[in-house]
Amino acid sequence: MKRSHRLVALTNYFLENPNIQESLTYFSKRFGVGKASISEDLDIVDEVFRQIGQGYLNRVAGSSGGVSFIPKVPEKDGEQFIAALCKRLEDPARVLPGGYLYMSDLLGEPNTIRNIGRLFASKFSDLELDAVITVETKGIPLAYAVASFLEVPVVTVRRDPKVTEGTSVSINYVSGSSRKIQSMVLAKRSLKEGANVCVIDDFMKAGGTISGMVSLLEEFQANVKAIGVLAEADDEEDERMVEDYLSLVKISNVDMKTKQIEVIPGSYQK
Amino acid sequence: MKRSHRLVALTNYFLENPNIQESLTYFSKRFGVGKASISEDLDIVDEVFRQIGQGYLNRVAGSSGGVSFIPKVPEKDGEQFIAALCKRLEDPARVLPGGYLYMSDLLGEPNTIRNIGRLFASKFSDLELDAVITVETKGIPLAYAVASFLEVPVVTVRRDPKVTEGTSVSINYVSGSSRKIQSMVLAKRSLKEGANVCVIDDFMKAGGTISGMVSLLEEFQANVKAIGVLAEADDEEDERMVEDYLSLVKISNVDMKTKQIEVIPGSYQK
Repeated sequence: MKRSHRLVALTNYFLENPNIQESLTYFSKRFGVGKASISEDLDIVDEVFRQIGQGYLNRVAGSSGGVSFIPKVPEKDGEQFIAALCKRLEDPARVLPGGYLYMSDLLGEPNTIRNIGRLFASKFSDLELDAVITVETKGIPLAYAVASFLEVPVVTVRRDPKVTEGTSVSINYVSGSSRKIQSMVLAKRSLKEGANVCVIDDFMKAGGTISGMVSLLEEFQANVKAIGVLAEADDEEDERMVEDYLSLVKISNVDMKTKQIEVIPGSYQK
Repeated sequence: MKRSHRLVALTNYFLENPNIQESLTYFSKRFGVGKASISEDLDIVDEVFRQIGQGYLNRVAGSSGGVSFIPKVPEKDGEQFIAALCKRLEDPARVLPGGYLYMSDLLGEPNTIRNIGRLFASKFSDLELDAVITVETKGIPLAYAVASFLEVPVVTVRRDPKVTEGTSVSINYVSGSSRKIQSMVLAKRSLKEGANVCVIDDFMKAGGTISGMVSLLEEFQANVKAIGVLAEADDEEDERMVEDYLSLVKISNVDMKTKQIEVIPGSYQK
């Protein structure tokens, strides 16, 4: 294969297999050229990835070494994306009775979801995560997007036990904002003991659901290395039940009468 | 930008933006080279995409013309993937009480989900779809995977109305296998009237849920152009409530005593 063709194939390979280390020998055999040529190819791919804000190629020397693609959103691109998100969310047509915000259209866009996943994965790529945890329902696509960049599995906490998941561990917790007792369950075989995980959800008010997930994960001896939410409500009445988390945006000052809302960048950007 | 660098950037562009047509003028301006050079670049990208089984570049001549990337899995690759899936599902450790099959591990793997999405998107790319419809919960990641290759939004039917989705339309339907009355709802503003849609779900037994979704979609004057399910149960007792669908695999002969199961390719492969 010629260099021009190799570059297309290599770019495709890295984008399809992020965070997976592969040896130069593998590429050398696959394309039938020497390692020196592959090394030059990698320089070009790395240079362009950095230039277009995709991330970079991480190269490890030595016999157990190789190369892996690390997705990384440049800070400026992240800020632009978050600013655009804030602007879209401030549309008064989104305000629903009760002061809730309609976000299902945004959450239905594969590209938006993918970009949100890329942002969290950029921050979490050093944490050596074994899984991304979410709770049904709206956080699910976000969790898969994060996981697809980290190349780790998604584990979904359920609201009710499912016959299709076998034995499960369940906990009851108090919802932070409604103060109701709720429950959630996690299938026993879905997570190995002692796993490093991050928790992803779409929305956080007082943090009851996420703090419930953290408790449930303790039963699996999991290490919660990071928590990421798309949007948090700026709710001064309640004390947060979760302290250390990253939010992309913060929704504040929902005025039901005028349908004015203010959406500002969340803790992700700090 | 030199050709080598352009090829990396172009490959990245197409993989991130499938099924979107862009003019040669756009690329010519973006990379600061003539259209003839861009055209040669596209020949190379197209050739490699076909070679590695990613799909192809579709080029439309004329003033309103341009180029778009159409993801397409070669038949042989699809067959291999489905065969591997069947083999993994036949593992006796998956058999749960009641004859159900544990699939959450597979459904948690971003790469597996992505490949399943690629298969359905390959078949559906000519249907001019406006949205992918699924019902919570387990079909959601599959629906996003399909949608990410078709570059259309996902619309999620809920089991219960959500305050965060505003006014909704709901229907009651009879579950095909349990014969219970169930309900599902779709937010009014989530789908425009007359949309072309495909329906995606993880599992189908008698087809009650999917036929319920089809009824609900009739309320939105939607045209259900295709139905895709990951797995169908070969259930001879019940008559199928849905006739025209594609399944990747078919689960048959679950023997609870010996934990032997047989999983064969579904209608997708015919």
